[in-house]
Amino acid sequence: MKTATEYRKKLSEMRPNIYVGGELLRRDDPRLEQPVNVVSTTFDAAQKPELKGLVTTVSHLSGQEINRFCNIHCSIDDLLNKQKMTRQLCHRVGGCIQRCMSADATNALSVVTYDIDQKYGTEYHKRFLKWLDHFQKEDMVANAAQTDAKGDRSKRPHEQVDPDLYLRVVEKKSDGIVVRGAKAHNTIAPYAQEIIVLPTRALTPEERDWAVAFSIPADAEGIYQIVRLASIRPRKYLKAPISNFGDAESLTVFDNVFVPWERVFMCGETDMGGQLALQFAEYHRHSYTGCKPSITDMVMGATALVAEYNGVENAQHIRQKLAHLIGIAELVNAAGIAAAHTAKKTPSGTYAPNGIFVNVGRRLAGENIFHEWEILCDVAGGWYATLPFEEDWFHEPTKKFLEKYTMRNPRISAENQHRLFRMISDLLASAWSGVELGGQYHGGGSPIMETIGLLRDYDLQPKKDMVKYLAGISLDDPHG
Amino acid sequence: MKTATEYRKKLSEMRPNIYVGGELLRRDDPRLEQPVNVVSTTFDAAQKPELKGLVTTVSHLSGQEINRFCNIHCSIDDLLNKQKMTRQLCHRVGGCIQRCMSADATNALSVVTYDIDQKYGTEYHKRFLKWLDHFQKEDMVANAAQTDAKGDRSKRPHEQVDPDLYLRVVEKKSDGIVVRGAKAHNTIAPYAQEIIVLPTRALTPEERDWAVAFSIPADAEGIYQIVRLASIRPRKYLKAPISNFGDAESLTVFDNVFVPWERVFMCGETDMGGQLALQFAEYHRHSYTGCKPSITDMVMGATALVAEYNGVENAQHIRQKLAHLIGIAELVNAAGIAAAHTAKKTPSGTYAPNGIFVNVGRRLAGENIFHEWEILCDVAGGWYATLPFEEDWFHEPTKKFLEKYTMRNPRISAENQHRLFRMISDLLASAWSGVELGGQYHGGGSPIMETIGLLRDYDLQPKKDMVKYLAGISLDDPHG
Amino acid sequence: MKTATEYRKKLSEMRPNIYVGGELLRRDDPRLEQPVNVVSTTFDAAQKPELKGLVTTVSHLSGQEINRFCNIHCSIDDLLNKQKMTRQLCHRVGGCIQRCMSADATNALSVVTYDIDQKYGTEYHKRFLKWLDHFQKEDMVANAAQTDAKGDRSKRPHEQVDPDLYLRVVEKKSDGIVVRGAKAHNTIAPYAQEIIVLPTRALTPEERDWAVAFSIPADAEGIYQIVRLASIRPRKYLKAPISNFGDAESLTVFDNVFVPWERVFMCGETDMGGQLALQFAEYHRHSYTGCKPSITDMVMGATALVAEYNGVENAQHIRQKLAHLIGIAELVNAAGIAAAHTAKKTPSGTYAPNGIFVNVGRRLAGENIFHEWEILCDVAGGWYATLPFEEDWFHEPTKKFLEKYTMRNPRISAENQHRLFRMISDLLASAWSGVELGGQYHGGGSPIMETIGLLRDYDLQPKKDMVKYLAGISLDDPHG
Amino acid sequence: MKTATEYRKKLSEMRPNIYVGGELLRRDDPRLEQPVNVVSTTFDAAQKPELKGLVTTVSHLSGQEINRFCNIHCSIDDLLNKQKMTRQLCHRVGGCIQRCMSADATNALSVVTYDIDQKYGTEYHKRFLKWLDHFQKEDMVANAAQTDAKGDRSKRPHEQVDPDLYLRVVEKKSDGIVVRGAKAHNTIAPYAQEIIVLPTRALTPEERDWAVAFSIPADAEGIYQIVRLASIRPRKYLKAPISNFGDAESLTVFDNVFVPWERVFMCGETDMGGQLALQFAEYHRHSYTGCKPSITDMVMGATALVAEYNGVENAQHIRQKLAHLIGIAELVNAAGIAAAHTAKKTPSGTYAPNGIFVNVGRRLAGENIFHEWEILCDVAGGWYATLPFEEDWFHEPTKKFLEKYTMRNPRISAENQHRLFRMISDLLASAWSGVELGGQYHGGGSPIMETIGLLRDYDLQPKKDMVKYLAGISLDDPHG
Repeated sequence: MKTATEYRKKLSEMRPNIYVGGELLRRDDPRLEQPVNVVSTTFDAAQKPELKGLVTTVSHLSGQEINRFCNIHCSIDDLLNKQKMTRQLCHRVGGCIQRCMSADATNALSVVTYDIDQKYGTEYHKRFLKWLDHFQKEDMVANAAQTDAKGDRSKRPHEQVDPDLYLRVVEKKSDGIVVRGAKAHNTIAPYAQEIIVLPTRALTPEERDWAVAFSIPADAEGIYQIVRLASIRPRKYLKAPISNFGDAESLTVFDNVFVPWERVFMCGETDMGGQLALQFAEYHRHSYTGCKPSITDMVMGATALVAEYNGVENAQHIRQKLAHLIGIAELVNAAGIAAAHTAKKTPSGTYAPNGIFVNVGRRLAGENIFHEWEILCDVAGGWYATLPFEEDWFHEPTKKFLEKYTMRNPRISAENQHRLFRMISDLLASAWSGVELGGQYHGGGSPIMETIGLLRDYDLQPKKDMVKYLAGISLDDPHG
Repeated sequence: MKTATEYRKKLSEMRPNIYVGGELLRRDDPRLEQPVNVVSTTFDAAQKPELKGLVTTVSHLSGQEINRFCNIHCSIDDLLNKQKMTRQLCHRVGGCIQRCMSADATNALSVVTYDIDQKYGTEYHKRFLKWLDHFQKEDMVANAAQTDAKGDRSKRPHEQVDPDLYLRVVEKKSDGIVVRGAKAHNTIAPYAQEIIVLPTRALTPEERDWAVAFSIPADAEGIYQIVRLASIRPRKYLKAPISNFGDAESLTVFDNVFVPWERVFMCGETDMGGQLALQFAEYHRHSYTGCKPSITDMVMGATALVAEYNGVENAQHIRQKLAHLIGIAELVNAAGIAAAHTAKKTPSGTYAPNGIFVNVGRRLAGENIFHEWEILCDVAGGWYATLPFEEDWFHEPTKKFLEKYTMRNPRISAENQHRLFRMISDLLASAWSGVELGGQYHGGGSPIMETIGLLRDYDLQPKKDMVKYLAGISLDDPHG
Repeated sequence: MKTATEYRKKLSEMRPNIYVGGELLRRDDPRLEQPVNVVSTTFDAAQKPELKGLVTTVSHLSGQEINRFCNIHCSIDDLLNKQKMTRQLCHRVGGCIQRCMSADATNALSVVTYDIDQKYGTEYHKRFLKWLDHFQKEDMVANAAQTDAKGDRSKRPHEQVDPDLYLRVVEKKSDGIVVRGAKAHNTIAPYAQEIIVLPTRALTPEERDWAVAFSIPADAEGIYQIVRLASIRPRKYLKAPISNFGDAESLTVFDNVFVPWERVFMCGETDMGGQLALQFAEYHRHSYTGCKPSITDMVMGATALVAEYNGVENAQHIRQKLAHLIGIAELVNAAGIAAAHTAKKTPSGTYAPNGIFVNVGRRLAGENIFHEWEILCDVAGGWYATLPFEEDWFHEPTKKFLEKYTMRNPRISAENQHRLFRMISDLLASAWSGVELGGQYHGGGSPIMETIGLLRDYDLQPKKDMVKYLAGISLDDPHG
Repeated sequence: MKTATEYRKKLSEMRPNIYVGGELLRRDDPRLEQPVNVVSTTFDAAQKPELKGLVTTVSHLSGQEINRFCNIHCSIDDLLNKQKMTRQLCHRVGGCIQRCMSADATNALSVVTYDIDQKYGTEYHKRFLKWLDHFQKEDMVANAAQTDAKGDRSKRPHEQVDPDLYLRVVEKKSDGIVVRGAKAHNTIAPYAQEIIVLPTRALTPEERDWAVAFSIPADAEGIYQIVRLASIRPRKYLKAPISNFGDAESLTVFDNVFVPWERVFMCGETDMGGQLALQFAEYHRHSYTGCKPSITDMVMGATALVAEYNGVENAQHIRQKLAHLIGIAELVNAAGIAAAHTAKKTPSGTYAPNGIFVNVGRRLAGENIFHEWEILCDVAGGWYATLPFEEDWFHEPTKKFLEKYTMRNPRISAENQHRLFRMISDLLASAWSGVELGGQYHGGGSPIMETIGLLRDYDLQPKKDMVKYLAGISLDDPHG
C-alpha cells in the first residue's frame, strides 16, 4: 500500500489539465488542498493498526494486503466492512470520503465483464483483472465517470443533434479506440489518477458506439477537466479539521482520447450497457448506506451539541427531532446491512448487494437530507446565519462585544461557542452547504431514480395475488 | 405438534369466562369463529411439508419438532426465520397472525429469568424451562398480558388511589401467590390456553408487589375476560377468505387469582421489572418487522389491483405511491433483518435482536399506517365507501343496475369487480378497519414509545464528539 | 320557511324507492332516522332567533325570508355567511351538514344558465329562476348528483361500450326529455325531495346527449336509489347527540326517467358542460372551507379533552399536535375567507368564489384528514380500539370491573370517561369512521382533482417571467 | 417623498460604524452596494405612476403623499395593500424587500403607546406621532431591533450573569436615558437611517430596566454594527438583476447610548413589554404573508422554467410539485388576506391583523421553505451544484466545451441555459442561499414561535365543549 505522501507526489507529477475559474491548475495547487486532504485520509487510515482488517484487506488476486477501496467483494463480510468503513471514515472528514467510487466501479466491472465474456466469448474479464492487479498494487485512486452530458432529455443517445452528447467511440484502431464526449458531476476526478468510464443508461441495438467502458489516466491527452470547487469561507484564526476538507467536481471532457485495448472493458455490447450502468448504481447506492448515515451523524451531533450550548437540550420537541435523525441514520444503515446479508454471489464470484434494499435505503436518505438541514437550522436558531465573519472576533473594538454578547450557557467558553456556531455556519450557510445538499440529494441517483428502479425490479404480482386470494378472486380467472 | 382440530377441542373444554356485549360466551361460540380461524392457520401451516423448517423447528429442550411460535431463539437464523414466517402467515389471514405474542413473551422470560437467577440466586429460570417444556409439547397458544390499567398516567403504580390499577401481588402463600389487577388490549387472550403476565414498566424499590411475572391458564378461577370483537359486515353470498378472519381483544381482569409457585417467574425483584418489560417489547417489535410489511403488502396489492381494475395502473402519481409502499415495507423488513444479524447472545444463550433496529423499524411502520390507508383510499376512489350492501347485488331490481353501472375495465367481470371493492370496503370502511389502524399504530408500542426507547438507548455522545473534533473543540475541555 | 316536522312529513309521503340491504324502505324507516336528524337540524336552526341572518336570509327573488341553504349568493357577505353557517351547524351534528349540496348546485346553475342563454339565446335562466322560486318557498332539500358511473376510466363518455355509463338523454319529446344512467355517491339523496343533476366533466362536440342538467323529484318514476348506510354501533344506555346522527349515500339509477322541459337547465350545449361541472365544484369546495374546519374542530376538541382525561394535556408533543390541528382548520378557513373576499360577480349577478383559493383550501383539507385521525388515535391511546361493548358497562359482573379499571384522571367520573372513549371509539373505529374518511378525502373532489384544477387555472407564466427577468433572460428572446 | 439618490446621499453622510471582516466601512462602500440596491427599489417604485396608491398613500398625520412603508394602517385596505405591495416588490429583487420592518415597528408603536398612555397617563403616543411625522416627511428607512443577545436561554433577563444580555436602561437623566446591550439579526440596519428598539419578550415586575422602546439614528455615538454580508459569487460577464441584490445583517451593539426623551416610547412599563413585542411580531408575520409567497413564486418560476429547459415540463411528478408550490404560496397569501379582513381596529385607531391567521400563515411558510428548495433541487437536477465557474464559460479552451456539452432543449440558446443554471446555482448553492433559508425559517419568528403563539391565543375551550356536547357530557359537570 502507498502513503498519502506518495499519493500527493504522484498528483504533482501529472500533466496539468484542471481548469478552474479561467485558470489552468497543477494538481498540487493550494486550491485543491482541501479535497486532496479528504482522499489522503484513506491512505492514512490504512496505516493505522487499529483499522487493519477494516480499511485494509487481502487481495483475492495477489494475496497481498490492499486498501479496501481497491477490493473486490468476495463475501458478505466484505460488503458489511465496506459499509462500516465508509461511515467511520466519513466521520473524520465531515462529509463524503469520495474514494468509494472506484470500489463501486471495479466491482461492477468485475461482475459484468465476466457476464459479457460468457455471452460473447470476449476476454474483457481477463483484461480487467490484469488492470485491477496493477491498480491494487499501486493503491490507485480512481473516479467513476458515468453521467453523460445527455443533451435533449426527451431523446435517446443516437437521436441527439450532436452525437457526442453521450460519450462514444469515434474510431476503432488496431491498438485501441478513440472516444469523444463529456461526463458530468465527476467527484474526485481532479485529484484521481484514473478515470473509469461507464455507460449511463440502457442502450438500443443502434447504439453500439455508445456501449463503451474503459479506464484511462486522468491526465491523458485530450482530457479536459473543468472544475467547480465547493468551499467554506477560509479560516485565518480558528483552525479546525472541518475547514481542512472539501470537494471538487469536474465536467470531464474527452476530446478524441485514445484508449488502448488493454484498458477497454466493453465495446459495442449494447445489450449489456444497461446492466453495467445498473450494477454500478447498486454498488454505489450501497456505499450511500455507509456515508449517508455519517452525514446524519454529523447533523445529529451538531444538533445535540448546539441544543446543549443553547441550554435547551431537554426540550421535548428537540429531543423528538434527534430521534427522527436517529431513525433516518439507522434505517439507512439497516438497509445496507440487509442488502449485504441478502447479497447474491454473481457468476464472476463477486458479491452484489440486494438491489431492493439499496434502493429503499438510498431513497430514504435522499428524501430526508433537506429536512435534516432544517432540523439543525431549527435547533441552532438564527445565529449561524448572521454570525459576523471570523476576523471581527479577533480585532478590537468588535472582539470584546462579540465575546460579551454571544455568551449563552455560561459553562461553555466564548471560544467554544464561537467554534461551534462557526462550524454550523459552514454546514448550513456556505457555498459548500448548497453543493453538499445537491450531492446528497442527487449523487448516486436522486430519489426519483430509486423510485424508477424499485418500480422496475420489485415484483408486485405476489402482492396482487395475495389480495385476489383474500378477496376470493381466482388467480386463474381470465376476467380477474 | 397438535392440529387445529385439537386446539379447537381444547378451547371448547375451557371454563367460560368470556364476556361480550353483556353475554357470557363459551370459546366455541360462533362469534369467536373468525379469530379462532386465524390461530388455526398456525397449526395448519405446521403440517405442510413445504413450510417445514420455517413454521416448525426443533426444541432446544426436548429435541422434538415444535411449532416455531413455541421456540426459543438459539441463533440469528431463528430470528430471521421467525420474521420471515410471520410475514408469510400474515399474508394468508389478511392481518395479524396473533400467535407471535407467546414467542415474544417466552423468549423475554428465557433471557430475564436467567439474569435474575444470576443476580439473586433464585430458581426462576429452571421453573420457566420446565413450564416451557410442557408448553412446547402441548403446542399451546398463549397471550402475553402486559399493559396495566394504569389509572392516573401522571402517577407511578404505588402512588395510585387504587393500588390495583397496576396488577400486583396481594398475598403470598406457601404454595403460590394471589394477584389482583387488570391487563388491557389482550389480543388472542379470549382463545388462548395460557396468559403470560409481564410487568409494563420500570419499577422503584417501593414497588415490590408490582414486580411480578407468571403464566396462568386463561380460564383460571378469578379471571374475567371482557372482550371487544372487531368485525367486518358478515357476508351472505360473496364468501371469501378475508371474511373468515378477525380478531378480538380482552380486558383481562384478575380478581384475586391464585398462581402456584411453579408458574411464577418473577416476584419482588423490582430492579429487573423494567428489563423484562423492555425485553418483551423488543422481541415484539421484531415481530412487527415481519407482520407490518405483510399489512403493507396487502395495501400495496390492493392498490395495484384496484388501479388495474380502474384502468389507471400506469398513472405516474399512482406508481409513485406504490413505490412509497414498497419503501415502507422493505425498510421495516430491512430493520428486522439488521436487528437479527446484529443480535446479541444473552447470558442465557437466547438471542435477542438489536434494540435500535427494532425500534426504528417499528416506529417507521407505526408512523405510516394511516398514510398507507390514505393511499389505498386515494387510488381506489370513493366507491368503496358508498358501495351498496352485499344483498343488493343479489336481488332484483337492484342486481341488474349494480352489475350494469359498476362496470369499469371491461376485461374484468362484474363479480370480480364487486369482490375487490367489497374487500377494500372491508379494509377501509368497517369497524375492523378502525381497530386495525389502532392496533397497527399502538400495538407493540406507539411511535412515541419507540422514540422514548431510542432516546434512552442510542448513544449520542460519539456524535457530539465527532462534531467537537471537526469544530476543533477539545474533548477534554471542561468548558466545551 | 318550513319546520323539521313538515320536512319529515313530506318525506313520509314520498314514493318508496330506497333500497338498502335487499329491502325497499319507506323514507320514514327508522334506519334513515339518523341522517334525517342531520338535515332536520338545518330547519330547527332557521327557527332560532339568535341564528337569524346567519342561517336565514332574504330571497333576491321573492324578498321573503328563506333558509340560507336555498339562497343565491348576491354578495361577498353571502359567501362569508354561508361558510360561517356551515362550520357552526356541522359543530352540532358531529360531521357533514349535507344540505350545502343544493346551495352549491343552484348557485352554479344560476351562473351558467345565464351564460348559456347569452351565448345561445336559450331560456334556461328564466326556467331556472321559476323553479328556484318554488324551491325557496317550499324550503326544499335537494341532492346534487354529479359523479357518473364512468365505466372505463380511460375512455370518454361516447367511447364507452355501454353509453349509459354516463347519464344521457335517450329521447327528446315535445314536453320533456327521457334520461338514462346512474350517479354515484349521492349524499342526502335518500331523504331529499329533489335531485339536481349536473354533468361530471368537460364534453366534446360528439357528446350532445351527455350535456344535460335538470332537477327532478327524488321519487320520480324510474328512479332507484341503492343506499349504503354508514353507522356507528347503536347505543342502548349511553344516549348522546353523536349517536343520533349519521349519513347515507345512494347510487341513484335513472331508468328512463321523464323530465319535463320546465325542469331542464341544459340540454345539448356541450361546450358549457365543463363550465357547469367546474362551477359546481368550486362552490362545493368553498363549502368545504366551512365544514372541513368543523371536522378538525371536533378532532381537536376530542384530542384536547382526551389529553386532559388521560392527564397528559401539558405534554409538549401533544400540544404541538394540537397546534398542527389549529393550523389545518384555520388555513382552510382562511382560504374560504380569501375566496369570498376575492370573489367575482358573474354576468348573472351571482357571486362566485375565487377558484384558486377554494382549490388550495380543499386540497389542504383532503391531504390532512387521515393525519388528523392519526393524531386523535395517537393521543387517545389504544383504549378506544379495545373498548368493550356498551352492554358490558351496564351488567354485572363486568360493570364493576370496567368502572374500577378504567379510572384515569381521578377528577373525572367513570361515566364521563366512558362517554368520551365511546365517542372516540365511534369516531375512529366504526364503519361510519371509514366512510367519513373516504368522504372527507374524496367528497367535493380528491386532492388530485384540486391539483389538476390548480395546474389548469393558475398562471405560471408571470412566475417564469419573474425568473427570466432576474436571470437576465429577455422575455422576447425566442431562444429563452 | 425622497428619491433613491437622496437616500444614498444620506447614507454616505453617516458616521461610519459598520464593521465587516475586521474592517470599518463607510455606508457607501461597494460591499454594501447590493443590499442598498434592494432598499433603493422601494424609492424608485414610489416614483412610478403605475404603482401610485399601491406603493404610495396619504399620511393620516400630514395628509401628504408618503411611501407606504412609512404608513400607519388606518383601514383593512391598508393592510391588504401592504401585503400586495410586498409580494410585488419582492418579485423585483429576488428576495426580501427589507423595508417592511419599519412599517411593522411603527404600527406596533402606534397601537401600544396609545394603550400605555391610557393606562398610565403618559405621553408616549404624542411623542411617537411627532417623531413619526418627521419620519414620514423625510421618507426614512429604519430597522426594527428586537432580538436581544439573550445569554442563558433558561434564565430570564434579570437572572442573567451579565444584565446587559438583554438591552436595558443603565441611567435615567433629565434629558434622556442611557442604554446598554445588543440586538441580533438586524436586517437593513447597516444601511438604515434609524434603529427602532423594541423589547423581545414579556417582562416581570423586576424587569423595569428592560422595559424600553425608542428610536435612534443608526450612527449614534456608542452604536457598533458588526455585520455579516451574505453574497453570491460576483459576476464578471453574465450581469443580471439577481446579482445586483443582497442583504446584510448586523449585531447591533449599544455601548452606553444616550437617547433623548422625545425618542423614548416606553420606559419601565413592564406589563406592556410583552404586548409591544407581540404586536410587532404579528404585524411582521403579516408582512411575511406578502414576502414569503414571493419567494415561493421565484422557486415556482425557476422550477417551471428549468423543467422546460430540461424538456420535462410535462412529467406528472414535476407538475405535482408545481401544484404543491402553488398551494404553499396561495395558502400563505390567503392567511394574509383573511388576517386583514378580520383585522381589528385598536383603540389608537390603527388596524391590527388577526393574530391567529398571521400565525398559521407564517408557520406554514416557515415549515415549507427547506422543502421548496428541495423541489427546485429535484427538478433542476445536479448541474447547478457542479456548474463550472463563470470565467470558464468565457475563456478557451473551456468555452467551446461548455457550450457544446451543456446543450439540452435545442430551442434554448447556450447563453440562456447558462443564465438560468447560474441563477439556480446562486439560489441553491451559495452562501446567500444558506442565509436565505435561515432567514425564511427563523425571520419573523420560527415555526415553533408561531406554535407557541397559537397555543397561547387560540381558544380550545369551545372545541372541547363541542365534543362534550356530542358525547353527552354536561358542560356543568364538575367531574367532566
